[in-house]
Amino acid sequence: MMGWISFMLHRVQVTSDKFAYDVVTGRGAWRELRRFPLTSYSSIFVLSEKPLWERWGSTFLGESGLEKASPRARPILVPPGERSKALRMVEFVAGQLLKQGADRRSLMIVFGGGVVGDLGGFVASTYMRGIDYVQAPTTVVGQVDSAVGGKTAVNVGAMKNLVGTFYPPRLVIAEPLVLSTLSERAFRSGLYEVVKHAILVGDPFFRQLERGIGSLHPRQTRRLEPILASAVAVKADVVNRDERETTLRLVLNLGHTLGHAFEEATGYRRFLHGEAVGWGLLAATRLAERLGLLASGDGERIARLVRRVGPLPPIRDVPRAKVLRLLPQDKKAIGGNIRWVLPERVGKVKIVADVPMKEVAAALKSVTSDQ
Amino acid sequence: MMGWISFMLHRVQVTSDKFAYDVVTGRGAWRELRRFPLTSYSSIFVLSEKPLWERWGSTFLGESGLEKASPRARPILVPPGERSKALRMVEFVAGQLLKQGADRRSLMIVFGGGVVGDLGGFVASTYMRGIDYVQAPTTVVGQVDSAVGGKTAVNVGAMKNLVGTFYPPRLVIAEPLVLSTLSERAFRSGLYEVVKHAILVGDPFFRQLERGIGSLHPRQTRRLEPILASAVAVKADVVNRDERETTLRLVLNLGHTLGHAFEEATGYRRFLHGEAVGWGLLAATRLAERLGLLASGDGERIARLVRRVGPLPPIRDVPRAKVLRLLPQDKKAIGGNIRWVLPERVGKVKIVADVPMKEVAAALKSVTSDQ
Repeated sequence: MMGWISFMLHRVQVTSDKFAYDVVTGRGAWRELRRFPLTSYSSIFVLSEKPLWERWGSTFLGESGLEKASPRARPILVPPGERSKALRMVEFVAGQLLKQGADRRSLMIVFGGGVVGDLGGFVASTYMRGIDYVQAPTTVVGQVDSAVGGKTAVNVGAMKNLVGTFYPPRLVIAEPLVLSTLSERAFRSGLYEVVKHAILVGDPFFRQLERGIGSLHPRQTRRLEPILASAVAVKADVVNRDERETTLRLVLNLGHTLGHAFEEATGYRRFLHGEAVGWGLLAATRLAERLGLLASGDGERIARLVRRVGPLPPIRDVPRAKVLRLLPQDKKAIGGNIRWVLPERVGKVKIVADVPMKEVAAALKSVTSDQ
Repeated sequence: MMGWISFMLHRVQVTSDKFAYDVVTGRGAWRELRRFPLTSYSSIFVLSEKPLWERWGSTFLGESGLEKASPRARPILVPPGERSKALRMVEFVAGQLLKQGADRRSLMIVFGGGVVGDLGGFVASTYMRGIDYVQAPTTVVGQVDSAVGGKTAVNVGAMKNLVGTFYPPRLVIAEPLVLSTLSERAFRSGLYEVVKHAILVGDPFFRQLERGIGSLHPRQTRRLEPILASAVAVKADVVNRDERETTLRLVLNLGHTLGHAFEEATGYRRFLHGEAVGWGLLAATRLAERLGLLASGDGERIARLVRRVGPLPPIRDVPRAKVLRLLPQDKKAIGGNIRWVLPERVGKVKIVADVPMKEVAAALKSVTSDQ
């Protein structure tokens, strides 16, 4: 289908407490499955979502070699959208696996965005108390963030990711080609997570984004490759140092404490996840400035980069009181005390407890009236 | 309530891949919580089932010191019975935890039998990706087997334990006093698991049971203590050598391959779990004899001890074809191939693959027509 072009893959290794696995990014990443010990499994399943699988399934099966592999890969499809990240969908997928004879030596390949990735990882981690799985993320957020690190989850009621596990995949294969059919909005939404990683790691990655992020386009596979590779390297590095989120891994929560609250306060209807994180990054930056933590100039530099990603959906009318009320429910809160991740400069963040709610409210007000 | 009597506790240590924890058995075991670092948790929850908690809750809170502890322990109650071992109950309990402010530093104490133990362990292992928990088992099976080793699970449809995790508790406290309100039948059902452990470890434990198991009674707390302690030591020993069920831990499946099929073939209505295991032990023994694996005399000795536990519900009319069809779905089967655990003599079992179905059918027929 694609002919024999040359592949330049970026590879980082993640060491979990169980085993080490590769995260492979770049054009041709799906071909990595040809080197994976597929024949050692009793059966192979691909979990995906319907429209995505219709568009990309055959390309994926062809490039990955699964088309001709033995055992044959069998797809299990779930409806797209956040509502699939639920325990009743775990029940559905586990039931399908059982019906089709999956056992402890079966392999699950998770082909999809954040929803399928989190759901599939959770099913893999709990089906017969755990089977091997491979992540093949198909969105920007999946490729640079959620597919790496072994965090799996489903939502309970309105609470995102309330139930989940730490369970590393055996391999992550991030193929930028699949991003080419993302909508412009979904694509840009993922770039806010890329910006988050750039804030954590600083220059030269941050500067690279300043130069080009505004004009990035989902079909520019070649231009995307190094950016995605740099972004995922940040994630891999953090996970390598703190798989279980004891402290360091919390830094990945930058922009997410308020981001989650924005999503929940608007019933998950107004913002895509990345867009809520975009607002969360702006608010965290403002909060850090208010607390005198953030070096002068850097706050402006961060805000400018966030704004450059694209237009964010309006936030002015989101009830601030509601957002503030939702904060102590954050999973990273301990005894109701929120641990804030706040930028100190481009390339450095700090975890701060005991931030007065008054300051949070003021930062929130300033950012949300500011648009 | 009990005054200051002296306590003789049996203690074994289990080493998981994460940490080591104590399994404390005997009159006064609940008092161990007084030495547990309760104050280091942000909140404490007790998961239990309604009638059990009404009968034993205040005794437990008093003896354990939870009554006066800070933070105060809050009960979450689920209906008794196997139907509570379901993903929708995971959803309910997680929702309750969230509503009452549970966070990552919360402690869950699981007070109940196998259903609550497996459900509670699963919730603890997945709520916010894992919180600490303590097992306080209140049935014989719980005390000698399921509460030790960190296996958690819920059922999916008719398939028992299809979804679960390996997640060790921080402490197991097995108080025999609580067994005194078990029905005679529920009590005896648990003794089949005790017999299973005796087959694995052999004499002198096996001989001890031969002498007294027929006359054991749920209210004989003092007489029960050493038997429960010996039985749980077998479990702890196996788990210590193979936490993740790679091979050795499979020996605990003795009697369970057919036992599970007996339960499922009768819609979980005829047999208590232990009773199905009792039949499973008899069938595995007969199968081992047929295959020429089991030393002469020992087969008879095992069957006699199983029979001595008490009367088993009838099995003659259970459709054997249905039982045989259910076997390849066993979680320990790989690629449909069942790994049988079969006794070689009292004190030794062997794991055997490739047992001809014809032999299984013949053993099954012989045992089920034999009653």
